[in-house]
Amino acid sequence: MSSKVIKNGTIVTADLTYKSDVKIENGIITEIGPDLSGDETLDATGCYVMPGGIDPHVHLEMPFMGTYSSDDFESGTRAALAGGTTMVVDFCLPNPDQSLLEALQRWDNKSTRANCDYSFHMAITWWGEQVFNEMETVVREKGINTFKHFMAYKGALMVQDDEMYASFQRCAELGAMPLVHAENGDVVADLSARLLAEGNNGPEAHAYSRPPQVEGEATNRAIMIADMAGVPLYVVHTSCEQSHEAIRRARQNGMRVYGEPLIQHLTLDESEYFDKDWDHAARRVMSPPFRNKQHQDSLWAGLQSGSLQVVATDHCAFTTDQKRFGVGDFTKIPNGTGGLEDRMPMLWTYGVATGRLTMNEFVAVTSTNIAKILNCYPQKGAILVGADADIVVWDPEKEKTISAKSQQSAIDYNVFEGKKVKGLPRFTLSRGKVSVTDGKMTNEEGWGKFVKREPYGAVNKALSTWKEISAPRKIERTGIPASGV
Amino acid sequence: MSSKVIKNGTIVTADLTYKSDVKIENGIITEIGPDLSGDETLDATGCYVMPGGIDPHVHLEMPFMGTYSSDDFESGTRAALAGGTTMVVDFCLPNPDQSLLEALQRWDNKSTRANCDYSFHMAITWWGEQVFNEMETVVREKGINTFKHFMAYKGALMVQDDEMYASFQRCAELGAMPLVHAENGDVVADLSARLLAEGNNGPEAHAYSRPPQVEGEATNRAIMIADMAGVPLYVVHTSCEQSHEAIRRARQNGMRVYGEPLIQHLTLDESEYFDKDWDHAARRVMSPPFRNKQHQDSLWAGLQSGSLQVVATDHCAFTTDQKRFGVGDFTKIPNGTGGLEDRMPMLWTYGVATGRLTMNEFVAVTSTNIAKILNCYPQKGAILVGADADIVVWDPEKEKTISAKSQQSAIDYNVFEGKKVKGLPRFTLSRGKVSVTDGKMTNEEGWGKFVKREPYGAVNKALSTWKEISAPRKIERTGIPASGV
Amino acid sequence: MSSKVIKNGTIVTADLTYKSDVKIENGIITEIGPDLSGDETLDATGCYVMPGGIDPHVHLEMPFMGTYSSDDFESGTRAALAGGTTMVVDFCLPNPDQSLLEALQRWDNKSTRANCDYSFHMAITWWGEQVFNEMETVVREKGINTFKHFMAYKGALMVQDDEMYASFQRCAELGAMPLVHAENGDVVADLSARLLAEGNNGPEAHAYSRPPQVEGEATNRAIMIADMAGVPLYVVHTSCEQSHEAIRRARQNGMRVYGEPLIQHLTLDESEYFDKDWDHAARRVMSPPFRNKQHQDSLWAGLQSGSLQVVATDHCAFTTDQKRFGVGDFTKIPNGTGGLEDRMPMLWTYGVATGRLTMNEFVAVTSTNIAKILNCYPQKGAILVGADADIVVWDPEKEKTISAKSQQSAIDYNVFEGKKVKGLPRFTLSRGKVSVTDGKMTNEEGWGKFVKREPYGAVNKALSTWKEISAPRKIERTGIPASGV
Amino acid sequence: MSSKVIKNGTIVTADLTYKSDVKIENGIITEIGPDLSGDETLDATGCYVMPGGIDPHVHLEMPFMGTYSSDDFESGTRAALAGGTTMVVDFCLPNPDQSLLEALQRWDNKSTRANCDYSFHMAITWWGEQVFNEMETVVREKGINTFKHFMAYKGALMVQDDEMYASFQRCAELGAMPLVHAENGDVVADLSARLLAEGNNGPEAHAYSRPPQVEGEATNRAIMIADMAGVPLYVVHTSCEQSHEAIRRARQNGMRVYGEPLIQHLTLDESEYFDKDWDHAARRVMSPPFRNKQHQDSLWAGLQSGSLQVVATDHCAFTTDQKRFGVGDFTKIPNGTGGLEDRMPMLWTYGVATGRLTMNEFVAVTSTNIAKILNCYPQKGAILVGADADIVVWDPEKEKTISAKSQQSAIDYNVFEGKKVKGLPRFTLSRGKVSVTDGKMTNEEGWGKFVKREPYGAVNKALSTWKEISAPRKIERTGIPASGV
Ligand SMILES: [Zn+2]
Ligand SMILES: [Zn+2]
Ligand SMILES: [Zn+2]
Ligand SMILES: [Zn+2]
Ligand SMILES: [Zn+2]
Ligand SMILES: [Zn+2]
Ligand SMILES: [Zn+2]
Ligand SMILES: [Zn+2]
Repeated sequence: MSSKVIKNGTIVTADLTYKSDVKIENGIITEIGPDLSGDETLDATGCYVMPGGIDPHVHLEMPFMGTYSSDDFESGTRAALAGGTTMVVDFCLPNPDQSLLEALQRWDNKSTRANCDYSFHMAITWWGEQVFNEMETVVREKGINTFKHFMAYKGALMVQDDEMYASFQRCAELGAMPLVHAENGDVVADLSARLLAEGNNGPEAHAYSRPPQVEGEATNRAIMIADMAGVPLYVVHTSCEQSHEAIRRARQNGMRVYGEPLIQHLTLDESEYFDKDWDHAARRVMSPPFRNKQHQDSLWAGLQSGSLQVVATDHCAFTTDQKRFGVGDFTKIPNGTGGLEDRMPMLWTYGVATGRLTMNEFVAVTSTNIAKILNCYPQKGAILVGADADIVVWDPEKEKTISAKSQQSAIDYNVFEGKKVKGLPRFTLSRGKVSVTDGKMTNEEGWGKFVKREPYGAVNKALSTWKEISAPRKIERTGIPASGV
Repeated sequence: MSSKVIKNGTIVTADLTYKSDVKIENGIITEIGPDLSGDETLDATGCYVMPGGIDPHVHLEMPFMGTYSSDDFESGTRAALAGGTTMVVDFCLPNPDQSLLEALQRWDNKSTRANCDYSFHMAITWWGEQVFNEMETVVREKGINTFKHFMAYKGALMVQDDEMYASFQRCAELGAMPLVHAENGDVVADLSARLLAEGNNGPEAHAYSRPPQVEGEATNRAIMIADMAGVPLYVVHTSCEQSHEAIRRARQNGMRVYGEPLIQHLTLDESEYFDKDWDHAARRVMSPPFRNKQHQDSLWAGLQSGSLQVVATDHCAFTTDQKRFGVGDFTKIPNGTGGLEDRMPMLWTYGVATGRLTMNEFVAVTSTNIAKILNCYPQKGAILVGADADIVVWDPEKEKTISAKSQQSAIDYNVFEGKKVKGLPRFTLSRGKVSVTDGKMTNEEGWGKFVKREPYGAVNKALSTWKEISAPRKIERTGIPASGV
Repeated sequence: MSSKVIKNGTIVTADLTYKSDVKIENGIITEIGPDLSGDETLDATGCYVMPGGIDPHVHLEMPFMGTYSSDDFESGTRAALAGGTTMVVDFCLPNPDQSLLEALQRWDNKSTRANCDYSFHMAITWWGEQVFNEMETVVREKGINTFKHFMAYKGALMVQDDEMYASFQRCAELGAMPLVHAENGDVVADLSARLLAEGNNGPEAHAYSRPPQVEGEATNRAIMIADMAGVPLYVVHTSCEQSHEAIRRARQNGMRVYGEPLIQHLTLDESEYFDKDWDHAARRVMSPPFRNKQHQDSLWAGLQSGSLQVVATDHCAFTTDQKRFGVGDFTKIPNGTGGLEDRMPMLWTYGVATGRLTMNEFVAVTSTNIAKILNCYPQKGAILVGADADIVVWDPEKEKTISAKSQQSAIDYNVFEGKKVKGLPRFTLSRGKVSVTDGKMTNEEGWGKFVKREPYGAVNKALSTWKEISAPRKIERTGIPASGV
Repeated sequence: MSSKVIKNGTIVTADLTYKSDVKIENGIITEIGPDLSGDETLDATGCYVMPGGIDPHVHLEMPFMGTYSSDDFESGTRAALAGGTTMVVDFCLPNPDQSLLEALQRWDNKSTRANCDYSFHMAITWWGEQVFNEMETVVREKGINTFKHFMAYKGALMVQDDEMYASFQRCAELGAMPLVHAENGDVVADLSARLLAEGNNGPEAHAYSRPPQVEGEATNRAIMIADMAGVPLYVVHTSCEQSHEAIRRARQNGMRVYGEPLIQHLTLDESEYFDKDWDHAARRVMSPPFRNKQHQDSLWAGLQSGSLQVVATDHCAFTTDQKRFGVGDFTKIPNGTGGLEDRMPMLWTYGVATGRLTMNEFVAVTSTNIAKILNCYPQKGAILVGADADIVVWDPEKEKTISAKSQQSAIDYNVFEGKKVKGLPRFTLSRGKVSVTDGKMTNEEGWGKFVKREPYGAVNKALSTWKEISAPRKIERTGIPASGV
């Protein structure tokens, strides 16, 4: 691959803003400085040169009742690139009693057509000696240091507290980090049944069946279990004040807990479910559901103050046809929606342009923070010499109106339909490859590679030290019982 | 029974302090006013005439490995009277799969020798249609409106979240109130096993195995489930800031949640478990365990501000011999200790004499509040015409040093051994019967009667109304899905 | 006065609900029981017999730029009675450098025409040795145990922190309680000036100039100062979450702090100020201004959980003409509005009928709690033998639509105009005198008497004890400095 | 200056840990990479190569009653270098009515002998048009973008709320940031007088006179005022939970507020004041005083969670002789103590070695965060090409016992006397000059230069945007008052 230089731009990272050119060779940033030259020049005049976005929460080609969610690794990563995202992390979901390694094989197979780099989280969907043992292989050999736990989806993916505790302890030993989908599955199941029984079968009942309280409770519970296990915790799709409060309270006590709001929860609210159009509402069905404005304010404040660290999408692109499985029974509406293509422009428009976030904070929450948390920084999430050239050249003046008609994603609608965004990629580079140029796709199918991630990140190690130092000590006694002898 | 008059005292209730005489006929207060006379006169000069204490949390003659806790209804209620407590509430504990009604029969049998009035909470130790059905009988026919749920004691009394949710909903329907022992049983079980495995087998490990975090988590979870079920909640033995915080947070959102610190947690701390004498430590083993001073401060502040409402004992008098079942394995130390006789003098000495509580607040937290919560006010907990003459004539100048040697309780030690208290009963009256006179017992075995309690208290009804008004509403749509038609 | 009996009603107090008749002689309740008879019978069939309301926060005939607020002690107390309120507490406001006693004389003069009983708070509007000394006379001879401090109205009523601290300490010594109007006057003054300078001169700018933040800050400051002075604190017109949060946080630490939401803040919101009709908006100008729905939720939850204790009105009835002083300059709109007549029906309709509050809580927050706080319980706020017969016979089925046209208040509008209320007095009795019968006024001008209130309430005393016990202790050293000698 | 290479070390920055050499030319980092060579080599084998520490809070040669604090810019910066700190920020303190520029001239004069780089905060000690005007010069011409405000020291440095608000608004306009010393000066003054009057005249009374409550209150007040002014806020020497709580609560609402714990408050507690040796206690007199362990836990958790960002010293080195001005009257003990030399080793030992902080967090809180906040990043606080070569080569195995005998500081004692630290500089470089080599000083008097800092940092700009977008809007009305026309 020939050398490239991004010229005349302003580099914006999580902690710096400065004018400089960037030189790229063999997919790696090899020089940062003024007046660079190379075989090819990308003009970044008027633009910000930022680390490409990382979306740590996507489900591509996710199995669902014999079919799959519509965006696979090809279209999904294409959509990602179109929006300035250059790495995605998908969830490997073993079936009940299935080997983790076998499941991983399936995910490896699916990901071969990816247009940008990707990594995997491993889900712990059941528990047993095999899982316990394979976790070590997954961490040491497969380059995966994160394990997802579902506290909801009773009868399917959900794990019990004792299983979760066992798994969290295993994570602690292996230097890995647990993730949780935090909703109280028992309560959700019962609420759902009651709502259905009362004739509340529309998509709005999906929201009613998963109120903020059940998310807050589960978040709080997972945090306690992580604390007991002595391991950091990452809470996916933090959607509400209750969950955020639990995270804040934990952090306030020095615990190592992270929260991930989705761009959907930051910008859309529950009124979407009250739409008279069933399809409109059903297309927005995801878990947790959208919340009201007060919850949105809480999430934005979390990004501002650092109590929430990452903005993701939970992209899981079920089509309208798939959604209609749930006509007459909201519990059958597949959970998931899109966002991968729109996360960065939406966050820029609603976050940076309004003054809620600085540009540096934008980079932090879309890329750098998660790279650090997942322990793949500075390979990813950085504009540094030696880092992968996953770069977005961001044009703050470029505008568009979001529409399903013009999107890369395979899904037949867009939850942000009609939203005007200002701030879009001029170029998106995946390991040096220019994959997007002013809205035109020049991506390459299969270009994306798996990103291995090492265990025992700095926070894991520090926490282990502290837990050892502060562990309870046995009282030494002579004569047992002393008073009786 | 001849008429009695308590003369020359100052009546102190939850909201009044005034000089007046009290006349009693047939076990009932029939007149309150100046210059009363009757067949018999009790001189209350220099004393406060207060509603007798109510201890809503005792376990008398509790089954344990083929034996029983040492205080039965006779000695237990005698101890209660000696300390100014005139009513106790015990927990009926059905065995796995046992009929609630059958268990209740057993408890009825045990209680025949009681020296003062008593009532029962029914425990939900398993779940099924029979339990669901019998709950109605328990409430409507048996005069019990409170149901206890254990979130700990895995493999024994513990119930799962879905069972608890089902039971809470049933309580809501029946106008009853759920109670919870709030500790995360899964985590406690695992922590215990780990500690034992590491050789941490002394009584201090009992405390290590049940840190405040697991109590806080469970409290938070129970609150959420009660909120979803639309029912008030009573958290027994709230021992720590974490649990108290969860209660405060709920109340701050308008939820109807109550917390019950124990006199032990208010006045004793975790250092007791670090005693070099195994017996000393083991005698203090109860769940939750004693906490540090910061937690104590939190509990006192809760009583002052009203976020905690009731002071109880969880009296469950295991002897030193019984405690020694757990030599070499702390998990086998029976959980429980005494306090029934000392609750009122200890709280007066550490609470009223220090200025933390007013005398009226003392009455509120030892008697009146729980009478209201349990819906037996003003039969109990009041100095009012028509109320049962359960009265303590409190001498604020009377002193003693607490000692197992001089106590009524059958237990062979006292966790408050050596504490000096100032403020003790001059007389304790149970439905008009003078059962204690200046430390001399004149109680009558079998005098005590069961106190029936009606469902649908005012708070239950108000909460039901609110939940109905604020319930989610179905969106009416024509054409399903609308956009597809 | 002949004897009266209220028959066939259900007595509802702060802690009891029971069927009973009530007998009244010479303005005092002399008997409570079944089947009572007297010279006159008031039929309470289908009604609740409750303690008459107490409004602890009114300004009658308040001086303003050479005129007075329109409701004087005659029309104001008449309006009070019409709505079921039987006692009001007004604020005696000395001019700068005026003797407290002289000011009190003026207030005594104004109050001679009162139709129901009343008391006074004394305002500390300036500081000096004379004030310090007269406070003792006010407390010991004049029967006033509460002192109001304005943290806003810079250049007029506002006191500085050091003055407030000195006054709070003086309250502590005298067994009195400080009250605060909590808004940061410096910031309000500057914000007002800035808004005006920017052309923001309409009534909505009044709200902009006093955001919740300035109220929260001042509340927090007053609490700290009261804590340092060792005295309880009562925060008048708590209108927002920020102020409520400060109160909750203090109480959570065991401090003795009370908060008083107004019925206006509980039921009306800031959108009133955005009305296109200047008069509509200006008529609602009061300080603090109305807030948004989230603040309302906070206040209701405070009443439910007990972190807020009292519902008042801050009734200060400026007419439309008086309001128009502020055309073109919102800072000249006189602050104040009505509510005295509507407080009880509004709170019943929006609180009890919705299930937010029980009937007992309704009585507590409209009457009993404040009677206890002001130390005039059970003379007021109680249905007890010996209590003043200040009683409202409440018909829960009686309805009306609030309108200025049909009100007793002299003001020419009503901020609740058009609101439908259900729950109104059938009879209102002031010390036994039937002053309202089914909407017909039978009050007697001048009937009302001043209610003396004693210092050293139970909470004051307990707090003083605690502060003494926990006071810092001098370290005894020999040789000063020890190391140097 | 010849080129230098730091070889064989591990670079540790706020977000990276990696092995690399560092090349320095002309005081600037010119290359980072493997296998670098230069004229001079510094061996960093086994060491961490970190940005030199920045202490943003020192008072060197501070005027006090005709004398000065003992460490001047020479000895103070020498002490700094010895401990790995390469930049200090002092406070320019104008006298009452003195020109800011004139005062700055004095500070410029004092700083000529500095051994490392430094910058200034300007204090606003009085208010007037001259101050308002000169602030602009200070920001635009003098390179100072931070203004300190004292809320304590009544009668001396203290400013009133309205002055503070005016100054904060001025900061907002100028793109500067206000700092506050947050204690309620009125209450402190009165408490001090009362304590003295009661004979409480020892150094422990200093602590009694400034309880956490007065710090919490002032912090809360400053935050509100900053919010109203639309400007970020930096709270110096945050010492307690109350102040930290106020900061957390603000941040939780999205406000831009920073807190600075001191190394003393993190590691020493109030028991120091109870020492029987007057000198021991007096030497530790500073404001705020040391707090108890619970407050320490709060501060550590703040560093872990990011609610507190910076560790400083408030180094102000009064000698024992100077301290003794206060024998018999604690209010005369000069406030201040040392720490500049020990901050980094103490924080490493108590923070990193215990697992409370990662190494990266250590760099963040000792250097990088404050460089960003003060807007001099990445000139300072970074190991990046182009950054100043302010570097500490940190040997994690090097140990010592802190003692006044062996320190660089001119002060005759050390508050950390006897503490063992592990983790010390092998080399400290100030703009490339090796100033410390394994404990040997090779600094150069006068080497230090003033660091100019630009206004309008990213956070200031974002906040201004948000405040403008969310500013209140005037309601347009026709006919005023509308209803009257
Ligand atoms: Zn999920
Ligand atoms: Zn997902
Ligand atoms: Zn229990
Ligand atoms: Zn129990
Ligand atoms: Zn006011
Ligand atoms: Zn007022
Ligand atoms: Zn300071
Ligand atoms: Zn300082």
